[in-house]
Amino acid sequence: MDSTTLYIVIATIGVGILAFIVAYFLYRWVKKLPSDNETIEKVGGHIRRGANTFLKREYMVLAIFAGIVALLILLFLPEPIWVGGALENVLMAGFYLLGTLLSAIAGKVGIMVATTANVKTAEAAKRGGITQSFLAGFRGGSVMGLAVVATCVIGISAIYGLTTGVDSLNDFTASTMLGFSFGASSLALFAKAGGGIFTKTADISADLVGKVQYGIPEDDPRNPAVIADNVGDNVGDVAGMGADLFDSNVAAIAAALVIAINLDDPGVRNNFIQTILVFSGLGLLSTIIGILFARMGKHDNPSRALNIGTYVTTGLFAASSALCTWLLDFSWYVWGAAIVGLAVGTIIGIATDYYTNDVHKPVQQTAKLSEDGPAFTILSGVSYGFLSVLPAMIGIAIAAVASFMLVQKAAPTHELAGTYGMFGISMAAVGMLSIVGIIVSNDAYGPIVDNARGLAEMGGFGEEIVEITDKLDSAGNTVKAVTKGFSIGAAGLTVVSLLGAFISEVNERIFNAGLGGYFNAYGNPVVPFKYFNITDPVVFFGIIIGAAVPAVFSALLMMGVNKNASRMVAEIHRQFNEIEGLLEGKPGVEAEYDKCIDIATVGSLKELIPSGLFAIITTILVGIIGGVSAIGGFLLGNIVSGLLLSLFMSNAGGLWDNAKKYVEAGNNGGVGSDAHKAAVIGDTVGDPFKDTAGPSINTQITVVSLVASICSGIFLSIGGLGLF
Amino acid sequence: MDSTTLYIVIATIGVGILAFIVAYFLYRWVKKLPSDNETIEKVGGHIRRGANTFLKREYMVLAIFAGIVALLILLFLPEPIWVGGALENVLMAGFYLLGTLLSAIAGKVGIMVATTANVKTAEAAKRGGITQSFLAGFRGGSVMGLAVVATCVIGISAIYGLTTGVDSLNDFTASTMLGFSFGASSLALFAKAGGGIFTKTADISADLVGKVQYGIPEDDPRNPAVIADNVGDNVGDVAGMGADLFDSNVAAIAAALVIAINLDDPGVRNNFIQTILVFSGLGLLSTIIGILFARMGKHDNPSRALNIGTYVTTGLFAASSALCTWLLDFSWYVWGAAIVGLAVGTIIGIATDYYTNDVHKPVQQTAKLSEDGPAFTILSGVSYGFLSVLPAMIGIAIAAVASFMLVQKAAPTHELAGTYGMFGISMAAVGMLSIVGIIVSNDAYGPIVDNARGLAEMGGFGEEIVEITDKLDSAGNTVKAVTKGFSIGAAGLTVVSLLGAFISEVNERIFNAGLGGYFNAYGNPVVPFKYFNITDPVVFFGIIIGAAVPAVFSALLMMGVNKNASRMVAEIHRQFNEIEGLLEGKPGVEAEYDKCIDIATVGSLKELIPSGLFAIITTILVGIIGGVSAIGGFLLGNIVSGLLLSLFMSNAGGLWDNAKKYVEAGNNGGVGSDAHKAAVIGDTVGDPFKDTAGPSINTQITVVSLVASICSGIFLSIGGLGLF
Repeated sequence: MDSTTLYIVIATIGVGILAFIVAYFLYRWVKKLPSDNETIEKVGGHIRRGANTFLKREYMVLAIFAGIVALLILLFLPEPIWVGGALENVLMAGFYLLGTLLSAIAGKVGIMVATTANVKTAEAAKRGGITQSFLAGFRGGSVMGLAVVATCVIGISAIYGLTTGVDSLNDFTASTMLGFSFGASSLALFAKAGGGIFTKTADISADLVGKVQYGIPEDDPRNPAVIADNVGDNVGDVAGMGADLFDSNVAAIAAALVIAINLDDPGVRNNFIQTILVFSGLGLLSTIIGILFARMGKHDNPSRALNIGTYVTTGLFAASSALCTWLLDFSWYVWGAAIVGLAVGTIIGIATDYYTNDVHKPVQQTAKLSEDGPAFTILSGVSYGFLSVLPAMIGIAIAAVASFMLVQKAAPTHELAGTYGMFGISMAAVGMLSIVGIIVSNDAYGPIVDNARGLAEMGGFGEEIVEITDKLDSAGNTVKAVTKGFSIGAAGLTVVSLLGAFISEVNERIFNAGLGGYFNAYGNPVVPFKYFNITDPVVFFGIIIGAAVPAVFSALLMMGVNKNASRMVAEIHRQFNEIEGLLEGKPGVEAEYDKCIDIATVGSLKELIPSGLFAIITTILVGIIGGVSAIGGFLLGNIVSGLLLSLFMSNAGGLWDNAKKYVEAGNNGGVGSDAHKAAVIGDTVGDPFKDTAGPSINTQITVVSLVASICSGIFLSIGGLGLF
Repeated sequence: MDSTTLYIVIATIGVGILAFIVAYFLYRWVKKLPSDNETIEKVGGHIRRGANTFLKREYMVLAIFAGIVALLILLFLPEPIWVGGALENVLMAGFYLLGTLLSAIAGKVGIMVATTANVKTAEAAKRGGITQSFLAGFRGGSVMGLAVVATCVIGISAIYGLTTGVDSLNDFTASTMLGFSFGASSLALFAKAGGGIFTKTADISADLVGKVQYGIPEDDPRNPAVIADNVGDNVGDVAGMGADLFDSNVAAIAAALVIAINLDDPGVRNNFIQTILVFSGLGLLSTIIGILFARMGKHDNPSRALNIGTYVTTGLFAASSALCTWLLDFSWYVWGAAIVGLAVGTIIGIATDYYTNDVHKPVQQTAKLSEDGPAFTILSGVSYGFLSVLPAMIGIAIAAVASFMLVQKAAPTHELAGTYGMFGISMAAVGMLSIVGIIVSNDAYGPIVDNARGLAEMGGFGEEIVEITDKLDSAGNTVKAVTKGFSIGAAGLTVVSLLGAFISEVNERIFNAGLGGYFNAYGNPVVPFKYFNITDPVVFFGIIIGAAVPAVFSALLMMGVNKNASRMVAEIHRQFNEIEGLLEGKPGVEAEYDKCIDIATVGSLKELIPSGLFAIITTILVGIIGGVSAIGGFLLGNIVSGLLLSLFMSNAGGLWDNAKKYVEAGNNGGVGSDAHKAAVIGDTVGDPFKDTAGPSINTQITVVSLVASICSGIFLSIGGLGLF
């Protein structure tokens, strides 16, 4: 490692530490806010304990899972230990565990802060009005945003520093990085899909029994599932979304590094690696500053404040990365690729907003059609959901081509154009994810203020205060749709670069195994891309199977929600029947909240297993049966169908949610009308679409891509079983 | 053309003519059945006139559309007339028109027979019991089945005979064939998507206003939309499905021929072409015999009779094609590929049956979950719908790989393996479609007996007779699910072979334009497949955009149904309000059926245009912007996402339909229960899924693949716009 790179590694880690310090001060600021209302302290305590119980159980299951996977890696990956030697396997397994651990810590920190900030936000609404309340919610969320990105940046930089700094580890940077990224993905699968099942189990059951059958209002403390519902917001949207974006961020940076490491020209390789590290550091630095800018000031508009934070971060990253490109003599093509990614992320966000925001036609039209009955609510939502995939898909397609074409221009010879181009795509993903810190902050803000609304209601703070929290909540929802689109876009580009990383790994192995390739002018191996032609039926086979996986994966998740919800519905009925005075709201009678939390927790982890195993086992089977060509196709099919379905489900779900809110705001007949009943049904269908299946598909794609990459050695040696 | 080929061409045309003769006798048999009930004659007349009105209007619109397209082909395709010369363009344009014309004739014949057979079937139920009634319905449907396949076989054989028999036309076989196939697809797009919008507009509106709002039973003559609903069954399921399968069949045979024609070794080429023609002829011959075997005999089981017809046809084709392979010295590998296709078609059918038949878990579970409300009906259907794609996708993937691998073994050199393999895939499609005649017969049987049920109800035939027709109808529904799965599978393999045909065309053109390739040992050009690597970002770009197209296409269709249904709902309300005594069923007062038929007709053609244009224009844009590589990716993405969505939508729709019927049969609370209300909502959502959007996607994929193939010259010369 040359001295410039060393300084960069140190500086990046420094930015990471700075982010942690800022996060700590923000946490202290939130924690010091006054709160003394007993009711909400008590309910807040329930929520905190519930969320922690879930995390604890989840992490215990995960620990077993991760232990088994680590053992398998140790024995078999990237090559069986008796073939390739122990050291690489130990590194991969060890950093796999570190990946799960860091993500788990970030999730734990996020939950800790969020379940404190919700109480403080409710109190702040009473004491300091909307400005103060907004700050409490947003700063609470920012702790998660900063923790997620800082952990990622520190982890990646440290791995790179370690494996290049210590001579005996020099060859293992790629596999260590992939192991780390796979660890992050494993956790994300549990956190996002498990959290998604938890939150929707609780939400659907609470609504179905409470609102529909007994006619008691939302967030009413008599409902035994109400606390589970609030816990669900935290574990699904804070811990789950955080783990998801941590995973995307790590994967994007890891993919870029793996491609860069396999580059031939040492000068270019170093330059590219420096660029990756510097850009990630700058993204985090811009986020720190952006977070401090997100204040309401004189304007009575929380959406505006959230947007300011995002714009400042985006602008700062664009400017500072340009400055560093100039100062450090990086490639302007690479900078261009990063900016393309950033721009496309924004465009996807805007398109998502169009399809899910109630000021535009899709939501209003769906609300209107609801007057004719629920079938039309569903049909309209499905139609708009399908339409909504187009702009995002075009955006991702253009981002991929443009960033490829740009960085390709930096290639010294024609035969290297492909590798440089793939690096360009990975940099577009890195660029898009540079502002991930502020995205996570905005996202975690959502459940905090949503919780605060519930607490204000349960604490009897009065209508005026509930209205303030409602306003904060509604800003959270608007921003959430945009960030969800962003996170799907980011995952899309990330997995494309993971496909690039996979191919890069395969080519490296093909050459090392003496199966093909030659030495170029730098004395480095070149393997022409020859394995992944769509006219190869094995590739086609992989594509078709890969495309079916996200559909089956999301079906299994949704069925899990259904099954789990019916368990919880039975429990709520039991409590209303057996606990005397509960339904009547007799003072001193309290629902057994913990039982509902327990059902959601146990069920979500249980229902998660089939879908997770299905995705991983299918990948391994296809690799073993069809070899690397089939896996290349499999990843492609998986990406394409995964993007399609996750965009569809997330957007349709968001649209139904807002159509219901639009009707509840007094349109098309308002609360109680036929349109409202229909819209509620649409919302219930949309819940697992948007909060369980849709976003979990991102994680599924990433997990599958990483499994393929780390198993590429196995697939190459025994893949195809001699059939092809 | 050698003499053996000439005899084969003549024999194939002979089988086609024989099929027409048999069809004529079947038609005469049906027509001679007695009927004298005035009411049902009158209603039958309404239906017949309504269906003919729709066809007439549709064909008028189509004539304009086809005229414009033919003119464009004449001027620009396969190459601009001032570049490539007039003759090829004239042929392509002329046979394009012939393709539309033959399909239109088959549709017209089918409608003519079906709208006669419905009345006869109702009468036969009264006079001859279930055995006679079954025969009337099935033989009516068989006329359509035979007409569709005979037209296809005669058309293809004649084109081949003409273009190879006349020396000056020798080079134009491929483009003539593609033009003919594109004609068939154009018509299918109108017939299937337009018919699909028509039938669901009427069905949804009739149910919504009649059953739900006014509480009058299904098929009640007071409902102004009731005739439109019956007309819809005919134009959607008889003419639409017929045109769809005509299109698939023509496309599969055309693709196989185009690939075979571009083969290098003259001996193999001839042998392969003979195989295609002989197999298509044998498929038709087996169908003729199979149709005669479909009788109820002593068993009181119409499903069994339908299945016997299918099994006999399948067995006969397998045996006779083996015999001819032996006698005529065809390749056993090619025979194997055809049988693989046939077997996989059957497997897909069985899988479809599992997910949509009410004796299995998915339908029963959905019915059970409906007790908790419509949201769970929807979620369950969506989940099972997603699950159902897996077996079909695996089947198609295995069929593609297996048939490729088999026929590849016939290749003399390694470099030709790809072309031979692609030919194998096309033969799997031809094999799967060999039994298409009996599939269409079974399918057309459905709406005939469905109509007969309505007629028996309206004619006051009494409960016993209605029960007979109910039994026939239910057999039709069971078989329909299977045939729908079959037709999607067939379309899937067909479009894969169209992708092969596209690549074959492109390679031919690349060589002719001097852009690459070399001469092989036979002195024929070989162009290595080099354009379609998934690591090429332009290919990736195409894949992503191509994958979005079916989603948008089906969204536009479903929105068309929604819009059109709201127009018809308004009309029904108007009639009930303005026509005195209509709702009360005052004798002599009749609804203005024609107005509803008119709305469905005009609306369906109007709403069809955006979706059709969207698919075609996107293809052309991607080809011009990205060139042939982008189009190769585009087709692949389109196939993958199209298969996924059409399987999902068809199966989920079929499942909801049968879940409703399952509840109506007295399960989970029966008619009037909450579960029933929920199941009705599921069915309404499923209607446009399964009868409009789902099956139309097949046609969309075929149209797009053919547009790509016939425009390949343009895309190669100006595609990429110098950008890439």
